[in-house]
Amino acid sequence: MVDRKYVLKKHMEHKGKIEIIGKVPVETHKQLSTYYTPGVAQVSLEINARPDTVYDYTNKGNMVAIVSDGTRILGLGNVGPEAGLAVMEGKAVLFKKFGGIDAMPICIKKGTEEEIIAFLEQIEPTFGGINIEDIEVPKVLRIVKQASKRLNIPVFHDDQQGTGVVALAALKNALKLAGKDNDAKVIVLGSGSAGIGISKMLIHAGFRNMLVLDSNGIIYKGRKDDMNEFKDEIALMTNPERVRGTFEDAIKGADVFIGASGIPHLLKKWHIQKMADKPIVFALTNPIPEIEYADALKYGAYIAATGRSDTPNQINNVVAFPGVMRGLLEVRAKSVSLGMLNAAAEVIAKGCRHLDNRNIMPSVVDKRTELRLTEDIAVAVASEAIREGLARIKKGPDDVRKSVRLSVKRYEVLEKRFAE
Amino acid sequence: MVDRKYVLKKHMEHKGKIEIIGKVPVETHKQLSTYYTPGVAQVSLEINARPDTVYDYTNKGNMVAIVSDGTRILGLGNVGPEAGLAVMEGKAVLFKKFGGIDAMPICIKKGTEEEIIAFLEQIEPTFGGINIEDIEVPKVLRIVKQASKRLNIPVFHDDQQGTGVVALAALKNALKLAGKDNDAKVIVLGSGSAGIGISKMLIHAGFRNMLVLDSNGIIYKGRKDDMNEFKDEIALMTNPERVRGTFEDAIKGADVFIGASGIPHLLKKWHIQKMADKPIVFALTNPIPEIEYADALKYGAYIAATGRSDTPNQINNVVAFPGVMRGLLEVRAKSVSLGMLNAAAEVIAKGCRHLDNRNIMPSVVDKRTELRLTEDIAVAVASEAIREGLARIKKGPDDVRKSVRLSVKRYEVLEKRFAE
Repeated sequence: MVDRKYVLKKHMEHKGKIEIIGKVPVETHKQLSTYYTPGVAQVSLEINARPDTVYDYTNKGNMVAIVSDGTRILGLGNVGPEAGLAVMEGKAVLFKKFGGIDAMPICIKKGTEEEIIAFLEQIEPTFGGINIEDIEVPKVLRIVKQASKRLNIPVFHDDQQGTGVVALAALKNALKLAGKDNDAKVIVLGSGSAGIGISKMLIHAGFRNMLVLDSNGIIYKGRKDDMNEFKDEIALMTNPERVRGTFEDAIKGADVFIGASGIPHLLKKWHIQKMADKPIVFALTNPIPEIEYADALKYGAYIAATGRSDTPNQINNVVAFPGVMRGLLEVRAKSVSLGMLNAAAEVIAKGCRHLDNRNIMPSVVDKRTELRLTEDIAVAVASEAIREGLARIKKGPDDVRKSVRLSVKRYEVLEKRFAE
Repeated sequence: MVDRKYVLKKHMEHKGKIEIIGKVPVETHKQLSTYYTPGVAQVSLEINARPDTVYDYTNKGNMVAIVSDGTRILGLGNVGPEAGLAVMEGKAVLFKKFGGIDAMPICIKKGTEEEIIAFLEQIEPTFGGINIEDIEVPKVLRIVKQASKRLNIPVFHDDQQGTGVVALAALKNALKLAGKDNDAKVIVLGSGSAGIGISKMLIHAGFRNMLVLDSNGIIYKGRKDDMNEFKDEIALMTNPERVRGTFEDAIKGADVFIGASGIPHLLKKWHIQKMADKPIVFALTNPIPEIEYADALKYGAYIAATGRSDTPNQINNVVAFPGVMRGLLEVRAKSVSLGMLNAAAEVIAKGCRHLDNRNIMPSVVDKRTELRLTEDIAVAVASEAIREGLARIKKGPDDVRKSVRLSVKRYEVLEKRFAE
């Protein structure tokens, strides 16, 4: 599928996938003394006097740090920050292309939770938002929770929150097609970043008939083995009857299976056959899902979806994260909330124009759709941030939309040089 | 001179002076799966297996962090990291324009020495070099010293080392014109980053008849008041007779005055008149020097220089830092040494084609000269790094030169859009 030699060759050719360029000319003496010394001192004095103007006079408001310590890179595990850098640079390109966002990959040495939180606090002045990526659980969940409290800029955790958004969006559409609603019995298999993220989004969206599982089986209030504060929280908000048991037990009669287990080909024919009528199967583990798309359908799934791009119904974070972050930046948000994420999921679900069993997610292949969707998500997130009082500035939908379009189009011009 | 309103207006217009863009296309499915998942996993595995390949497959080798905590921004003092961001973004543009280097400004919250050193260690995996900027003394000197030991990438301190390089280059040329050499009596007034940096460079270059002063007067071995380990070091390597006294005492019979005092208009007519024959006066405090260029000449200076661009003989770091960092990056240097800095100073001195009393520094206004100088500096630094065994890879002068030209020219193409 992927030719290793080709990939390495292309990477070697470019020696990195991003670069940092100026937005201003520094050719003449006047330009130099406007954008650098002595003129720039006036800007520093102004920001010092009125701190919020840092958003007006610097790039802070469009600058995001992609932070990872390399402990959980893709499906590879702890391969280290240098190895992670290759992935984070790719993500930075996607942030720019799809969201017009300047994203700086910062892969840091492995550290304790407290060290990483302290690091995020240190860099806060420079960035309008943080994107946490590919850090091991449960450490990363604690980092995100604490940092979100301590920092005054949004700390977005794509593996958790981004995955939650796209899974919820896809689920809304799938249930609609199946003629079901949020009373559906949902099984979430996995309680890492993705599993916790999906569960929290679904709970927030009103799903109550839900069982969340880890490798020890169903999570319930009072369970002793292998729990942490995040599973405890899930236990409090799902499974009121404190059902115990294995995955085999849980899947019986389920309307929806959502896999975030990290275990390839775990879901078998007999699991699907035990599910309720019109079973919905989301096998989200990458790159090899819990069950292949075609197999899921063959074994009776009414709707199937995976994270892969080579089959229908790809559930991929790239649909969400550029628009979500763009929306946060547009209103200089102080943090990201479940309400904002839910607003994003609703917009994504609605963004699927030709809804059918093989089209439950909007396609981002088409450029026009893609930009429109990013605008819609940004507007939804920005509006909700304002509503919740978590925005530093107010901005109407039209202004948000215009600004998003401008920043994405801006990059299209620069991107043209690739054609050469 | 600088119109505050105009500067603020231009900054507001651009909302930041840098942006982060992709170097690769992510348009097609093939491109996406080459530069992002799943293909990029192959790159991560390769880097994990052979750590030094991070320089081949990512942008680390061309990426520099400009780190400041905002405690000593320009001449403004402790105005904070957000205010510093405006300056560091300008510096990033200069790094790119003159050195083809991707420089990321990271302004961090104020912290202890240990916190900032820990921060630099944390970000080491991502960067090929660090540029420390505008942090208060003596904290910054300790940070640079310790971080240089602990990190395996160069930690360059422009206020100290960059200033040292350009001052030494200018001094070489000035002494040549005056028919003097490094036996000249040199007075360095100031023992902050610049004063210490200049003194260390001069000591390394063989100047021994030197007195370094701070606000308490001449520094000598055994002095008790207001000393620190850096002044102690200077005391050991200068002033063997342990001369004590004030600036008024020191300046008597001096061949060279170098001001890095931070005190505008401190140097008076009678000071220059007390100096030796053909006195050389470098008044480097910015933006208002220890003496104005014209006044220095009027009062008898044989050669005068300041940091300002509006009079002859500007002594400005921008001549040095892009080339020095470029050279370090070219050979993936592990650290920066006095030997490398000295090599840079020699090249800069020689780069002054039409040497006379009003031209002791190469001009960087002319594009061709500028690029040629950057190449020369990079070659000198890279060669010295290899010679000292501080380079990760070997590279001949021609290869360095070609690579420098390529990376600077690359930006020229992108820069053209400013004309629009």
